[in-house]
Formats: sequence, structure tokens, C-alpha cells
Amino acid sequence: MSQEQNFIETTPELTVAGDPRPWERLLDLLADGDPEALDAALSDLSSNDQALALSRMTEDQQSQILTMLSAVDAAEVISHLGETQAAAAIEALPIGEAAAILMELDSDVQADLLGDLDDEHAEAILSVLPASDAHIARLLSTYPDNTAGGMMKSEFLQFDDSLTAANLIETISDNVEKYRDLDVQYAYLSDRNGRLTGVLPMRDLLFARRGQCVSELMIKSPLSVPAALPLDKLIEMFETHHFLGVPVVDGDSKLIGVVHREAVNYEAARRVESDYLKSQGIVTEELRTMPLWDRARRRLSWLSINIVLNVGAASVIAGFQETLEKVIALAVFLPIISDMSGCSGNQAVAVSMRELSLGLVRPTEMMRVWLKELGIGLINGIALGILVAIVATIWNGNPYLGLVVGVALFANTIIAVSIGGTVPLLLKRWGFDPAVASGPLLTTVTDMCGFFLVLGIATLMISQLT
Amino acid sequence: MSQEQNFIETTPELTVAGDPRPWERLLDLLADGDPEALDAALSDLSSNDQALALSRMTEDQQSQILTMLSAVDAAEVISHLGETQAAAAIEALPIGEAAAILMELDSDVQADLLGDLDDEHAEAILSVLPASDAHIARLLSTYPDNTAGGMMKSEFLQFDDSLTAANLIETISDNVEKYRDLDVQYAYLSDRNGRLTGVLPMRDLLFARRGQCVSELMIKSPLSVPAALPLDKLIEMFETHHFLGVPVVDGDSKLIGVVHREAVNYEAARRVESDYLKSQGIVTEELRTMPLWDRARRRLSWLSINIVLNVGAASVIAGFQETLEKVIALAVFLPIISDMSGCSGNQAVAVSMRELSLGLVRPTEMMRVWLKELGIGLINGIALGILVAIVATIWNGNPYLGLVVGVALFANTIIAVSIGGTVPLLLKRWGFDPAVASGPLLTTVTDMCGFFLVLGIATLMISQLT
Repeated sequence: MSQEQNFIETTPELTVAGDPRPWERLLDLLADGDPEALDAALSDLSSNDQALALSRMTEDQQSQILTMLSAVDAAEVISHLGETQAAAAIEALPIGEAAAILMELDSDVQADLLGDLDDEHAEAILSVLPASDAHIARLLSTYPDNTAGGMMKSEFLQFDDSLTAANLIETISDNVEKYRDLDVQYAYLSDRNGRLTGVLPMRDLLFARRGQCVSELMIKSPLSVPAALPLDKLIEMFETHHFLGVPVVDGDSKLIGVVHREAVNYEAARRVESDYLKSQGIVTEELRTMPLWDRARRRLSWLSINIVLNVGAASVIAGFQETLEKVIALAVFLPIISDMSGCSGNQAVAVSMRELSLGLVRPTEMMRVWLKELGIGLINGIALGILVAIVATIWNGNPYLGLVVGVALFANTIIAVSIGGTVPLLLKRWGFDPAVASGPLLTTVTDMCGFFLVLGIATLMISQLT
Repeated sequence: MSQEQNFIETTPELTVAGDPRPWERLLDLLADGDPEALDAALSDLSSNDQALALSRMTEDQQSQILTMLSAVDAAEVISHLGETQAAAAIEALPIGEAAAILMELDSDVQADLLGDLDDEHAEAILSVLPASDAHIARLLSTYPDNTAGGMMKSEFLQFDDSLTAANLIETISDNVEKYRDLDVQYAYLSDRNGRLTGVLPMRDLLFARRGQCVSELMIKSPLSVPAALPLDKLIEMFETHHFLGVPVVDGDSKLIGVVHREAVNYEAARRVESDYLKSQGIVTEELRTMPLWDRARRRLSWLSINIVLNVGAASVIAGFQETLEKVIALAVFLPIISDMSGCSGNQAVAVSMRELSLGLVRPTEMMRVWLKELGIGLINGIALGILVAIVATIWNGNPYLGLVVGVALFANTIIAVSIGGTVPLLLKRWGFDPAVASGPLLTTVTDMCGFFLVLGIATLMISQLT
């Protein structure tokens, strides 16, 4: 029976969860000290389960497993872990073995990983790498993650553009095993001075006459990008063009790396995820396998800022203590106004963040966004205001209380969507990260305004309320 | 001067925004009625700017532009738009032209787009498509978006496995222009009965002897997946294997499509983004170019549920009116407790959502997550409790008030992280969408508990507070 038939027949199992505790089997094999059985068991696991299994082991156990595997297999496992996990696993290894594993990783993964290690470990590993590898690794790790330089691989096929198709096929044939790992789709051609002159899709070699010069076959003057090109521009480029990769050149048009479409997609997805986490107050990466104190400290630093902002906003209430004393029912509605305004505002933030990321709005178009939100604020403000007014009137029996909280929620909904819609644009223009700062800024201002509106209007209408 | 040098020299401009109003130039050209100039102007724009430009036009203008372009060019523009935008643009066109544009799209994009059209338009377009195309389109649109069937393309190269390498190269050569558009990396081979027997990376043909039978060259019994395989499993598969695409087969092992790595990456990124939007109360797609009423109605449906939950939670306050009347200062702290507990709980939700998506936690591991959160709740609860206690004591002068709000925030932080951490797992186990429901569930319960704690403890200590 062929393998794919097997695969189909076992399909129902594919939709249920795998081994609930895949690490236990690995730990048993580790105790047995049988590298081959361990290697086989690891290969049987999906990459997700490998990551899950390693994340549930102590650093000692991780280190023992990685030591028992060949450097190639260990590198494979490492490449499936999250960054923080991978860095921790490498740091737990003796320098020699860490270096051997790093040598098996692609240059871009290697550079990212070195950047995630603490400086001491990174330097120690770089010092035992062969000089040329260490040089490339140092070079790549100088580029920020979110630029072409930070995403490029330094493994690529480069040939002299005076070769013939037959020369090229022969060279590639002779090195087929070496090149297979590169997963190359293109050969890059350069002139005598090393300047990039063309790109040749490998598939086109199939249709070439063997004696043809590659300079006739290649795509001439290909698109190339500088190492400093930011992620946004790379996303746009790969959306506009159907390339699988784009060459990165230095100021002399010399090829220094290749950015693959996949690396750009990966970074783009990572940014969306990181924006979501930041908006929820997880500003630096957290996995529950990290030490408790680190996790608590990181979350607390964001919470402390929020509690200060919260106290600031609530101090508005303190200014109206007299009114509150007279109409104690207002205290029931303050948290409702605060929460609901936060909800309306966060919706507007989310739509702005999405439109910014899709390029459907420019950071300068504050007025357009504000007008678009104003309409929503009016409609939803009226709806929510009437709802809360009815609830207040029924519960308290005094329609004026309903009027106060209804008008306050109506007005504050308009304020909330106006701020929520425009603040991300403003923060982006000013160079701040809208994902981190939009939420806290929004809730502080809407809380202040909300409390002021409820209590201010109540103070004006105090004779009808008491 | 070569093109890539040009590109490098203009780099500084790449980092600034493009034409702030790219649609104005297009509208001018549209008024001139010059299809070639319009086509050239559109090609000059990045895909982002094309989308931006079209989104700022009326449906009439969009329809005029798409009609003026060739079907191929119009399809290119359509493929760069967001789904809702693309569907609206197609619906605005006469059926014949809409069908012509759809015919130029890849099968997977075509099926998605047909699924986004209203039924009437979709049926009208299907009825004018050639029968075989309509059949494929109908078939593809039966699969849910998040399965192999929903992500696969029906364009692929399939050959008889008895051919020689020379036969294959000849066939491909004869159809090189047709196949180039397919962006194929693999040829799929099948036996006389049409069953998939092997996969041949196109590059490997380069190194083959021309007389060799492809069945000797191909990877035999390749991995294949059923159309029903869900996104999660596809993500895992592409993380574990380095393929650029995987064949989709029916129950008879017949090839029905190919899922490309890129399609899986795209769907995965879309899911992260949609989770973020849902958690902020944008449950269905919203762009500010959509009609005001639609946008308001969609946001309001989520807000209405929240206001009901909010009123429910605030009703706890109403039960303690007597205590509030005696210690009016408590009203200042109710919104602080509510907001801060929400913040702590949302952090825990975000970490759980991320660990679930990375496969680093199983939905059944409630106890593990709860214990991990308990530690954080204790540490951060103590820190935040002390902070708010100090603020309350300084402001009010009564250390007992500090004690009440401090203890309440301490206890409620523990409750919030416990609920926030475990609710996403529970919802996932029960088959609900944790991204939509976690937030509202969390804030309702933490609000209720928070209000009850502050006012309950205050009631017990009422003699010290007055």
C-alpha cells in the first residue's frame, strides 16, 4: 500500500490532538541513552509537538537531548522552536556543541538566534566559528530584524554571466547535494566586477540550448533592494511582483544576500501577532515556560503605567463627591460608561490599525478617519444612550437619571470613536508604536471624559435628581 | 544606467509615503478615456496604492476603470484588493465583464471571490462561464476556506508516470508560456488509473538523463492530504516539511488540487489578524469605505451584548447602596478595580491565545495554565494592591479604606488572571471561538467579583471606614 493511501486512511486521526504528553516518551528514551531511538521518536513528532515537548523539559534535559542528536538533527529541532525557547536551549549547551548546531542553520536563522542570545554566549560562539562564517554572522546580525538585511539569507547561487547554459548545468550538477539544501529557485549572475547583472529562474535552464550564453537567457537589470529597505516596502514589493525572492545589493551593486518571499510573509505575520499581544498588554514575548518572576515583572511594568493612568482618570470622580453623595445611584453607572466607551473606542482603534497595515489609510488622513468615525459615534451613541437611559429609568424610577447617563454615554461614545480612530494615525506619524500606546491613551481620556460628563451633567440637573 | 542602480539611488524615497492621493490621477485619466495611459498609470502604482486608489472611488468609477482595462489587467488589480472590496467591485460590473475577469484569476482566488459575492451575482456569473470552468469553480467553493480544499489551486501539471524525461521537457517546452503563469515547482505523476504515484521537482529534470523514465526520477508515494484537512494541520505539515506545495487527493487517490505553502501562510496570517480584530469587538470585516449603516450595525451588535453584560455586572453595585452612601470614596475606586482587573485578565487571555496557536498548550491543560497564572496573580496582585492601597490612604487619609481597596484588587487580580488564562482553553474545548468570547466573558465576571469584593469587604469593615 502506498504512503499517500495510508495518509488518507488515517485522516480521521489527523483532526484529533496528538499524544497529549509527547515529552514523556522522549524523557524515557533519554534515560535509556539510545540516540537512534531518540532521533526516530523526535522525527515522528510534528514540529509543533517537538516544540511542545522541549518546552516542558528542564534546561538540563533539553541540553542532554540536543547533545545526543547529530548537529544536523539538533539544528532541525532548534529551527522549529520559538525564538526565546531556541535561545534558552542554545545557551544551556556547551559552546562547542552550540557552535556546531548553529553552523547547520541557514544564515538568516543563525543571525536571528545569535541576536537573541546574551552577548557573552554570542561572542563565545562566534569566537569558535570558522572566521568566514563568523564574519557573515556578525554582518547579518548588524541589520535590524525588520529590514531586507535582517531577513536576507547569505546562501545563494552566483555565477559569472559569461558562462554558457551547459557550464551552469554542469556546475550545479556537480554540487547538486550542496545546492539542494539552499532551496534555490534562481541563479544570480554578475559581471567581472561582481556587480549583479541578471537573474535566471532555474526552470528556464530546462528550455535553453546548451550552448547559449546565460547573459542571453537571464532577466537583465533585475529588481534589487538595499539592505536597509524596511518590511513595509518588502511586503508591497512582493505583493506587486510574483518573485519568490529578491536580491539585496550593497552600494556597489554587489549581491550581499537574497530575501525570500517566505521570510517576508513570516515577518509580516509576526508583526500582526505582536501588535495583537501588545494591544492586550503583553509588550515583550511571554511563554508560560519562562521563569515566574520574569513573566510577572514584564506584565507588571505595563500594568503599573495603567494603574497610574487609571488613578488619574478616577480622580475626576473625586472632584464631584458632593453630587455623588446626593445621587448615589450614579455610582452604578460610572463603570458602565467607562467600559462601554472603552469598547467603542477599541473597535475604532482596531479598524484604524487594520487600515494602516493594509495601506488603506495614510497617517496624515486624520480628518477623513474622524469624519468616518463621527457617523458611527452618532448612530451607536444614540442607540447605546437610549438603552442605558431606559435601564436607568426603569431601575431607579427617575427619568432624569436616565437622561443624565443616556446623554453622557451618547456624548462619550462620540468622543471614544473619535479618539480611537485617530490616535493610531497620530502615534504612527509621531513615530510611536500605535499597538502599545493606543489602548491606554484611549481608555484614560475616555474615562476622564465619561466621568466628567456623567457627574457634570448630574451636577447641573441636581434639583431634578434628588 | 541599469535598473537596479536606479533603484538603489532612489532608495531614500522608498521610505517616504507615495503619492498621497493616487486616485486623483487615475480619475483624471478615466475622464480622458485613454485606456493605455490608465493601464500605465495603474501599473506604476504599488499594489497597496492600487487598493487605496480603488477604495476611494465610487462603485461607478471602479466599474468604469475595470471595464476600460483588459480582463488580464483588471484581474491583476482585483487580486490586490481586500475580499470585500474585490467582491463589491465585481458586483458593480456587467455580468459578462465580471465573468471575463474571473476567468483570468487563479482557481483558488476565483473560488474565494465567488463565495464572497451575493448568491444572485455568483450564479449569474457561473451561468456564463464555460461549463468546465463553472464546474471547477462550483467544486472549489464547496470547501470551507480553512481546509485544504478551500486553499488549493486546481491548476497543476499532471503527467503519465510512463513518460521519459525528454517527453516531459518537450511537453513543458511546448507550453512554456501557459505553464509559466502556473508558477509550478513540481510536476505530479499518475498511473493509468489516474492515481497519484509521484512528485517530480522541476529542477531535478535539469540533472536527468533525457531517456530516463520519470517514474525513476520522481519521489514515489508522496505525501498527500485530503480536501477536508484543516488549516492547523496544514500549518504543522508545512512547518515539519520543506515542500513548496502538497497535493490534495480524493478518496480514490486522484489528484484534485495543490495547496501551496504560500496559501497556508496567508490563511494563517489572516487568522491571527482576525483574532486580534475579534478580540477588540470587530467581529465581521470592516473597512471605512463600507456604508455607514453597515459599519454601525456590525459594531453595535457586539456592543449591545457588552452593555447587557455590563449592566448585569454593575447591578452588584446597586446591592450595596447603603455602604456606598456611608463611604462615598469607594465610588472613586470601583472603576479602577474594574479596569485594572480587565487589564490583568486580558494579558492572561493574550498569552493563552498565543500558546494555543503555537501548540504550546493543549486545550485540556486547564490546571497547568491555572497554576502558572496563580503565581503571576499573587505577585502582581500584591504589587497592584499595595499601590492602590497607598494611593487610597494618602488621598482619603483613612488607612482602612486603603486596606479595603488593596485587598479587593489583590484578590481580584488573582481571579482575573485565573479566568483570563483558562477561559480561552475552555472555549476552544467547547468549540466556541476564544477570540470573540474570551474578552466579554472575562470582564463581566471580573467586574462582578471586583465590585462584590470592594463593597463586601467595606460592608464588613464599615465601622472603621466611617
